Amino acid sequence: MKIQLLLTGNELMAGDIVDSNSSMMADFLGQHGWRIERKVTVGDDIELLVSEIKTQSESADVLIINGGLGPTVDDLTAQALALAAGTRLAEHPGAIAHLNHWCERRNFVLNQANLKQAVLPEGCGILANESGSAVGIHMVINNCQIFATPGVPSELRAMFRHEVLPKLQSDFSSDSIETRRLLVFGRGESTLQELISAQYPDWPVAIDLGFRASMPALEVKLTASGDDTALLDEWQQRLIDDIFQDTYVGNAPSSLAQATVDALYGEQLRLASAESCTGGMIASQITDIPGASQVFEAGWVTYSNAMKTALLGIDNELLSSVGAVSREVAEAMAESARQHSGADIAISVTGIAGPDGGTDSKPVGTVWIALTLPGDTHSYALHLPYGRSFFRTWVSAICLDLVRRAALGYTLEPAYLNRHRA
Amino acid sequence: MKIQLLLTGNELMAGDIVDSNSSMMADFLGQHGWRIERKVTVGDDIELLVSEIKTQSESADVLIINGGLGPTVDDLTAQALALAAGTRLAEHPGAIAHLNHWCERRNFVLNQANLKQAVLPEGCGILANESGSAVGIHMVINNCQIFATPGVPSELRAMFRHEVLPKLQSDFSSDSIETRRLLVFGRGESTLQELISAQYPDWPVAIDLGFRASMPALEVKLTASGDDTALLDEWQQRLIDDIFQDTYVGNAPSSLAQATVDALYGEQLRLASAESCTGGMIASQITDIPGASQVFEAGWVTYSNAMKTALLGIDNELLSSVGAVSREVAEAMAESARQHSGADIAISVTGIAGPDGGTDSKPVGTVWIALTLPGDTHSYALHLPYGRSFFRTWVSAICLDLVRRAALGYTLEPAYLNRHRA
Repeated sequence: MKIQLLLTGNELMAGDIVDSNSSMMADFLGQHGWRIERKVTVGDDIELLVSEIKTQSESADVLIINGGLGPTVDDLTAQALALAAGTRLAEHPGAIAHLNHWCERRNFVLNQANLKQAVLPEGCGILANESGSAVGIHMVINNCQIFATPGVPSELRAMFRHEVLPKLQSDFSSDSIETRRLLVFGRGESTLQELISAQYPDWPVAIDLGFRASMPALEVKLTASGDDTALLDEWQQRLIDDIFQDTYVGNAPSSLAQATVDALYGEQLRLASAESCTGGMIASQITDIPGASQVFEAGWVTYSNAMKTALLGIDNELLSSVGAVSREVAEAMAESARQHSGADIAISVTGIAGPDGGTDSKPVGTVWIALTLPGDTHSYALHLPYGRSFFRTWVSAICLDLVRRAALGYTLEPAYLNRHRA
Repeated sequence: MKIQLLLTGNELMAGDIVDSNSSMMADFLGQHGWRIERKVTVGDDIELLVSEIKTQSESADVLIINGGLGPTVDDLTAQALALAAGTRLAEHPGAIAHLNHWCERRNFVLNQANLKQAVLPEGCGILANESGSAVGIHMVINNCQIFATPGVPSELRAMFRHEVLPKLQSDFSSDSIETRRLLVFGRGESTLQELISAQYPDWPVAIDLGFRASMPALEVKLTASGDDTALLDEWQQRLIDDIFQDTYVGNAPSSLAQATVDALYGEQLRLASAESCTGGMIASQITDIPGASQVFEAGWVTYSNAMKTALLGIDNELLSSVGAVSREVAEAMAESARQHSGADIAISVTGIAGPDGGTDSKPVGTVWIALTLPGDTHSYALHLPYGRSFFRTWVSAICLDLVRRAALGYTLEPAYLNRHRA
């Protein structure tokens, strides 16, 4: 089945809003094994709309139109459908009944603007709208089933689920589709692609392989028919065992922070953080996860040297002799955070996020990270000169990954760090 | 000038990601008075891509392609362009130089997958990519200027600004369009719309008024021709003075955090934070702003009761008698943070983010915030039962706004809090 979308609205073209409706529709359709082949977006322009409806209905089996059903003059979908079908517009009794009911429930008087929403292409079917004033439109042009749906996301969601999908299911065959989204941290898309090609010349055609940068992790997506669940399970496991290994973080909707919390929880370990340049970002990402209180003890944001001394007891003379961005200070911060909090593991960060504060020997993007475990402290000098925001994101992600690795007993010198050594 | 977009990527069709790139491009183009006429989105399908490029290049003056420049087999833009133009693919020396440089900076060895990104339609121009491995492509087909750009938003942004826009400006006439995006915190769209309509029956037709939810703030967008800058200045000021008043945060690209840092810096005040349920989010947002070290002293993330006692000296008996989520504990946290850090202002938060931890008297979404200034402490009990993530975002935003208000000497009992009182 060939499905196309036609989205309409000046606000979509002007960049004022981001289109999340088509992603919602794709999700619904995908659950039945249907995918959208092509999507066209135009502003509120009657000629463009009529021309798109004609062209799309010629090549698609199903055309879903979204938007343009509202009461104002720039809502043109009904008119465009009538012109494309060569029919006239007429008041639709079912739509008028819906409007009357809708106004009654709100103590509104049905006005002329709203009444426009009942003027539809003659002979069309209507799709119920549970919450809004605009009914949807169902008609056939060029042997293509057309569904016109409202732009308001909550109205679209209900209409799609209760009106559009049942009609599609009764007219078209559907497959069940299984998807796995594997998160990998520390490996790039091109490296993985190469490793997978080399390792598996016999990669099964039944499994679709895709990649998506899901910053700072990478998402590897496996898709197959619902009949191939066992095959999917097998190849997911092969990928993890043969290739991803300790860079495998979990399956979406997990995340690096979720995996870190899970790893700590699994081993009954508690974490503390002492952050300078990341300024609370690590603590914030950890505590964003429900249940974080089971694994997170305390965090310090010691931005100035004075605060490193006052809160974490970092030796003043050490700070002035080796500087705040140094192995010694990073290690002292982590060890002090662990001691003061009684946590099992502590992570510390001290670096130069920029744009100011760099020197010749410690340029912007330089950072020291220390990870302290019972009886063992690891420290890392990295250089990530990619701008303040990017720097903070990457440093926080690396810290989360190091904590995850520590909890799971994986190597604490992952290869990806070598690309970033200071 | 007729501008069309062609977006490509299975992930766009499958609903995996929402397309924010076209909204970014529309924004950039709009600043020069250009609008996008039509936008087509297709998956990674070579036949569809070639057919779209042919059709679109016939009807448009400018076609901007986004996506499909990556190193993997499903990245097809270069190949599709070559097929549409009837040229062959060849290694592009400039693109190879870029890749070599890109790998060098990262200590990567240039691999076969990446090298694919230098295989481009013969005779095409390239567009510099400041941070990514994929150069952009510039060529002319059917007398239509075509720009192929990367899907990664940060790479697209830089390439659009520094490569695409200058080329368009040199070839096409542009109107200068002035836009002002006024950020307002604590007022809703429909309220503002109503206030503005009532206050200004004489709103000038030359100024376009728009609204956009820019969570958690609201963006009020004023647009006018570049000839009307003085009028724009005048009406912007009238809006601020008559209607927004102390809810006006600044003009985008500022943000609530930026405005808070600016306000503190302007008054030479320093801030400390003590966070429980927001877990470092306030500190993280403040320190995300360049120059935050001038205004931010220190932050504590005291998640457990034990840490509230150990780090901030909150009385154990107080905690067990009134509970961690209480006026007394919030005030003690703020006062202790101020004292321990020597900051001028301290903000504290203690609440129940959920999904667990609620009780009948303190349901999920309950939070106490305290703000302490020299000689003065304010505290607030709020109820924001909107889910963990939304809760943290809103609570952090309200805290930033209270600090901004304190620094600027505005009322510390803004009306919007009344909607959220516990």
